[in-house]
Amino acid sequence: MKTGINHLFIPGPTNVPERVRQAMNVPMQDMRAPDFGDLTKPLFAGLKNILRTETGTVFMFPGSGTGAWEAAITNTLNPGDKVLMSRFGQFSHLWHEMAERLGLDVHVIDVEWGRGVPVEDYAAVLAADGAHAIKAVFATHNETATGVSSDIEGVRKALDFSGHPAMLFVDGVSAVGSIDFRMDDWGVDLIVTGSQKGLMLPAGLGVLGVSAKALEASKSARMRRAYFEFADMLKLNGDGYFPYTPPTQLFHGLRVSLKMILEEEGLDNVIARHARLAEGVRRGVAAWGLKICAQPGFESDTVTTIMVPEGVDAVKVIRTGYDAYNTSFGSGLARLAGKAFRIGHLGDLNEGMCLTALSVAGMALRDNGAMIDTGAGVAAASEYYREARAGAAAKMAAE
Amino acid sequence: MKTGINHLFIPGPTNVPERVRQAMNVPMQDMRAPDFGDLTKPLFAGLKNILRTETGTVFMFPGSGTGAWEAAITNTLNPGDKVLMSRFGQFSHLWHEMAERLGLDVHVIDVEWGRGVPVEDYAAVLAADGAHAIKAVFATHNETATGVSSDIEGVRKALDFSGHPAMLFVDGVSAVGSIDFRMDDWGVDLIVTGSQKGLMLPAGLGVLGVSAKALEASKSARMRRAYFEFADMLKLNGDGYFPYTPPTQLFHGLRVSLKMILEEEGLDNVIARHARLAEGVRRGVAAWGLKICAQPGFESDTVTTIMVPEGVDAVKVIRTGYDAYNTSFGSGLARLAGKAFRIGHLGDLNEGMCLTALSVAGMALRDNGAMIDTGAGVAAASEYYREARAGAAAKMAAE
Amino acid sequence: MKTGINHLFIPGPTNVPERVRQAMNVPMQDMRAPDFGDLTKPLFAGLKNILRTETGTVFMFPGSGTGAWEAAITNTLNPGDKVLMSRFGQFSHLWHEMAERLGLDVHVIDVEWGRGVPVEDYAAVLAADGAHAIKAVFATHNETATGVSSDIEGVRKALDFSGHPAMLFVDGVSAVGSIDFRMDDWGVDLIVTGSQKGLMLPAGLGVLGVSAKALEASKSARMRRAYFEFADMLKLNGDGYFPYTPPTQLFHGLRVSLKMILEEEGLDNVIARHARLAEGVRRGVAAWGLKICAQPGFESDTVTTIMVPEGVDAVKVIRTGYDAYNTSFGSGLARLAGKAFRIGHLGDLNEGMCLTALSVAGMALRDNGAMIDTGAGVAAASEYYREARAGAAAKMAAE
Amino acid sequence: MKTGINHLFIPGPTNVPERVRQAMNVPMQDMRAPDFGDLTKPLFAGLKNILRTETGTVFMFPGSGTGAWEAAITNTLNPGDKVLMSRFGQFSHLWHEMAERLGLDVHVIDVEWGRGVPVEDYAAVLAADGAHAIKAVFATHNETATGVSSDIEGVRKALDFSGHPAMLFVDGVSAVGSIDFRMDDWGVDLIVTGSQKGLMLPAGLGVLGVSAKALEASKSARMRRAYFEFADMLKLNGDGYFPYTPPTQLFHGLRVSLKMILEEEGLDNVIARHARLAEGVRRGVAAWGLKICAQPGFESDTVTTIMVPEGVDAVKVIRTGYDAYNTSFGSGLARLAGKAFRIGHLGDLNEGMCLTALSVAGMALRDNGAMIDTGAGVAAASEYYREARAGAAAKMAAE
Repeated sequence: MKTGINHLFIPGPTNVPERVRQAMNVPMQDMRAPDFGDLTKPLFAGLKNILRTETGTVFMFPGSGTGAWEAAITNTLNPGDKVLMSRFGQFSHLWHEMAERLGLDVHVIDVEWGRGVPVEDYAAVLAADGAHAIKAVFATHNETATGVSSDIEGVRKALDFSGHPAMLFVDGVSAVGSIDFRMDDWGVDLIVTGSQKGLMLPAGLGVLGVSAKALEASKSARMRRAYFEFADMLKLNGDGYFPYTPPTQLFHGLRVSLKMILEEEGLDNVIARHARLAEGVRRGVAAWGLKICAQPGFESDTVTTIMVPEGVDAVKVIRTGYDAYNTSFGSGLARLAGKAFRIGHLGDLNEGMCLTALSVAGMALRDNGAMIDTGAGVAAASEYYREARAGAAAKMAAE
Repeated sequence: MKTGINHLFIPGPTNVPERVRQAMNVPMQDMRAPDFGDLTKPLFAGLKNILRTETGTVFMFPGSGTGAWEAAITNTLNPGDKVLMSRFGQFSHLWHEMAERLGLDVHVIDVEWGRGVPVEDYAAVLAADGAHAIKAVFATHNETATGVSSDIEGVRKALDFSGHPAMLFVDGVSAVGSIDFRMDDWGVDLIVTGSQKGLMLPAGLGVLGVSAKALEASKSARMRRAYFEFADMLKLNGDGYFPYTPPTQLFHGLRVSLKMILEEEGLDNVIARHARLAEGVRRGVAAWGLKICAQPGFESDTVTTIMVPEGVDAVKVIRTGYDAYNTSFGSGLARLAGKAFRIGHLGDLNEGMCLTALSVAGMALRDNGAMIDTGAGVAAASEYYREARAGAAAKMAAE
Repeated sequence: MKTGINHLFIPGPTNVPERVRQAMNVPMQDMRAPDFGDLTKPLFAGLKNILRTETGTVFMFPGSGTGAWEAAITNTLNPGDKVLMSRFGQFSHLWHEMAERLGLDVHVIDVEWGRGVPVEDYAAVLAADGAHAIKAVFATHNETATGVSSDIEGVRKALDFSGHPAMLFVDGVSAVGSIDFRMDDWGVDLIVTGSQKGLMLPAGLGVLGVSAKALEASKSARMRRAYFEFADMLKLNGDGYFPYTPPTQLFHGLRVSLKMILEEEGLDNVIARHARLAEGVRRGVAAWGLKICAQPGFESDTVTTIMVPEGVDAVKVIRTGYDAYNTSFGSGLARLAGKAFRIGHLGDLNEGMCLTALSVAGMALRDNGAMIDTGAGVAAASEYYREARAGAAAKMAAE
Repeated sequence: MKTGINHLFIPGPTNVPERVRQAMNVPMQDMRAPDFGDLTKPLFAGLKNILRTETGTVFMFPGSGTGAWEAAITNTLNPGDKVLMSRFGQFSHLWHEMAERLGLDVHVIDVEWGRGVPVEDYAAVLAADGAHAIKAVFATHNETATGVSSDIEGVRKALDFSGHPAMLFVDGVSAVGSIDFRMDDWGVDLIVTGSQKGLMLPAGLGVLGVSAKALEASKSARMRRAYFEFADMLKLNGDGYFPYTPPTQLFHGLRVSLKMILEEEGLDNVIARHARLAEGVRRGVAAWGLKICAQPGFESDTVTTIMVPEGVDAVKVIRTGYDAYNTSFGSGLARLAGKAFRIGHLGDLNEGMCLTALSVAGMALRDNGAMIDTGAGVAAASEYYREARAGAAAKMAAE
């Protein structure tokens, strides 16, 4: 018999704020009503702000982030097109697999897990592609499996340096709304995310940001598509309508989560909070004497992948957390299975929640034989949170 | 300023029962938790009961019914495959359009709007196809635009009569769970529906029932697909998991709606109720002196498409209902625009709600110049409901 | 097995608007938090606007309207005090009974059920009370049992005419927020209501408006009281706090319902809507050929008490509505039991809902032997609603 | 801008479980419907189980626990009756104050804060009251202000020892459903609680358990009462009805919380869990080097009152928790103001939540100058939780 809050520290679906939950608890309504656009049109505008784009076009497809990936590829590329990808974790692997399935000719670079997009390798490949055979470059902004962030701006620079016209595709599923992302500044042509991460909603909406260049490409792209057709959306989205029944309750939730992010807390502050909370978690892990998967400089501010000590089974750690302490951690995926567990720290979160994560993870680790000092973990994190708060207060006073 | 209930009489999304709404209002949870299958596995079993199949396999894709259509086609057919379709309303037209887009070679039969699948024409075409070039026969069980139901069992017989091995695909979006449908008895190979109709949920789940034959076909079908891949689902669904983040809150709702349909009211009773409520609406319309789009024998028990009198603008009727009386009716689609409006009467409904629909429609019609007797409409419907109830009570007493 | 909406036409608890329900679905919070007053203080201000008082003081007691009655009496009167009351329905009888229990010396005037406060009799009694022995005059604004409204302003005039200093106590439970009430203009000293009527909330808050004169009286009133002590509230309410744990979720709901009434629809429009919807119901009943309990000039705009024909059992009519048609009507109370049923039409309501009430009541009446023309009832009501809407539109255009 | 969960560690209202919240989110319904008793009658039965009484009668009054106190006194005692009380914290002081207001002749014993009911002093007073002038003995089971529990069984023994016939009144507001309480075994005549504590609901229901003896007393008790009259309830409760509109949504919530406590977790397990979680909190506080208010042997398992070090302002600690860390702690009340803060640990709680409380309290204490070792607190608590779990698992395996 479990009691109390189910502490949720997976990297998605994330904790849905109470106000968003309230907002979604609505009766059904007519998605063809004359005032339906009053609900939906501001969502497109808000998502553009989240993506920091003025010139891009936003799409919301009923489905998951995986569906949005498919929409991105099928609308803009042709079978046999050459693309450049890299993989360094479960989700970049899956993206690669999809590209293969959809018939792309993929040049894939395998990277050690713990590192991100190999910007210099990309630069080399692009420079060597004088014929511009590569139609698109794919970059995973935040690899959810390893807790690794990549330098998207660096990929842009690599493209620019060699004057390569390939489109830049970014998987932003566990990054958008939580980690700094700048669609226009970084010249991103296609960015994909889902509702269940930084947007703090249940799963059910695949979101895309599409540049003018990618939209132009979609007009001639010949990959077969139906459900995920941009053109069908474009015909109706302008007035706030959709070609098939959309998940209206998620729109109501999104309205509130956009307001919270953009108007109340402010996107910059949301990003700063993610950085602060993540740093505390990392300090706690370090105080335990454990390693994280991410190599220095690649640490993700939305998820931390923690390597358990030799002889400890990470699967059991996660299971103890769930069964004994009503707490959900993310599991180690693929080659990390049994060797790592993940603390998701994105979305609607605060210091107390991160300390809960560390406290419970500490118990579950010890229950499974890890000789760590749980108190030291909480102490290191909480001291960091206290200093960060004092620093923020001092900075605010000085301004 | 609108007050009171928004009366919702569109043919989907339908009214979500309170208990289903309660059930969906949950915090997020880990879709990889060890006990996640306790939630999801019974849903597959329940949906099989709804579809009346023992041998079929059920899929739930995050998305709309349209997505489920795409899943059906791309998993089981090959580009250039010949298929037999008919169209007699907006949704059968859209289905045809999708088949074309996905590269099928479609033999389409156009049918007068108001009638359903042309069973005899199908029989003739199939009999003439001695080479069995036709790989699949498509039939729209309930055309939501015209309020027309088709004879699916008849299509099965036509196939059997000529010993044709083509698969039978059925669009059951506005039929499943509301109108009699028997997947196994009628030898249906692919049935498609969405969560937002008879299942009484918000939009967000595309549901498919797939026969063993169709599943076998999916192993060799070469149409490109990724998001909607059956095989990815099959690998995980058995244990209750999904290849990407599913909309968990809809699962919680579905658990309750399946319980309501299958255990509490009983599927046969649900179907009988739909027939009874629909008949009342039709009698009310007849008492107004108006025609419905469906020709005799084709009347749908889930939606009635009402032809407005000459000189009356159906668009204005709907608009008056919405603006003045806080009531949503379905609009006339495509060639019915302005000439018809629709009363959706499927899902969680009762007599009082149908009388509300007639009462408000009566006012809106009169407000826009229709010379109808509103009282007569309500009187005809309510007398029918009274008699039907008395008859049901007498029948129950006799048993 | 009941399906669809439970149509609720009792005179309280009334239908809670969706937005109010959403707002109440909150986690618990600390009622001593520093910002708790941000939630509660505007509620006192809003309720003053509802009561149309600037000089009065508002109290919210956790409890029902009955509790608020007790608060009114025990805080301002002394045991043995002489008061003037009248009774003409179940609720005015109960109020009288409470006054007796609490030890008041009640001069009660019995009035024929169907009429309201006997203003002329009151005037006579007051004029005859030259010694001013009467400390308070009680008037039921809207008798919920009979569907009768009283002339509160008339009672004020009777007091003024004889220069009598007695306090004026008003039971506004089923009137406040729905029927015109003016605390300051009419010199009301104590007005009592509950959350579950015109305020469109669940039961749980007893609300009082107290004049400066009555507040002064409370300082010396010696009736024993503890839970309902004004002074305890006064000490804390100014900062938004309460002497014991208040039902916070109702405060969140009240914030929204006040916004809907005062800011969005406007109190005058709310009152006009109640008058319009009530008139339609009355016309429908008249078209059936049935009588209402209220005599001309006393009709209530929040509840209509309908006399069933000789030989028809009103208890069965109500039971049929509930069992067969999932509809709740109010029952005939005390001497009206079996002879009448009630349609509550206050709170969050619209035309369609009133027509539902008439449609279902028509069926239930016929099911129980009443020879009425159901269609005529709906027709009369709906024609009135159409005209009223046209009239309102024309008026708005002319302005 | 606050983000994430508002961590709620006040001793009431307590955290409402999600399922209870879901259950309360219902539309209004008729409290006079024929099947209303199906909802309410099991609640009376369930509450009897919670109170561990077979012979007692349960009342539910719309209101707070304070109202239930008043109901207890006014229904069973007469003005001027002599009663024995003791006070040792804010709530026992308030109870005494109410007894005085209601005209009782109170023999009150002041006890050092940190200790509970002075059983030996009670015994002496009762033994000396040979004339049996004392009509009732009052005992606060759990003093919410000081975090102190009393020996109710001891009070019973004191009464029995001297063969004193006085009734035994118990304030169980922050004890019932969380700390062992046995109405029948301990011969308690009146037990009072509120919905917002161990019952895990919002405030709004005052609950009483009344022995046959106290019920008999109520028949002749002459204290004036109206709203809180037992007899009015008794007339209707048997069929599940109420004399005035009850808060139906709380009944729906109570149905679920009773099921959780009695059927799912089991009352004994709930009580054991409270003991376990409380012990962890106390060990954490001890590891900080701080004292709690309760003296050894009097520690409460529902709330811990923590004395802050000299020079630290407890008000600021609480304020920091609220403002900086979105966490609510209870404040020090009356003479403890500024010197103590409280961690409420009753209701729907688990280990992770208690560790959150300690983690955040640790930060807030340090932020305000307390030189404590936050890590040590979490470590001590978490080690205790780990051991307790291992012990429980071993015990279960041995059985």
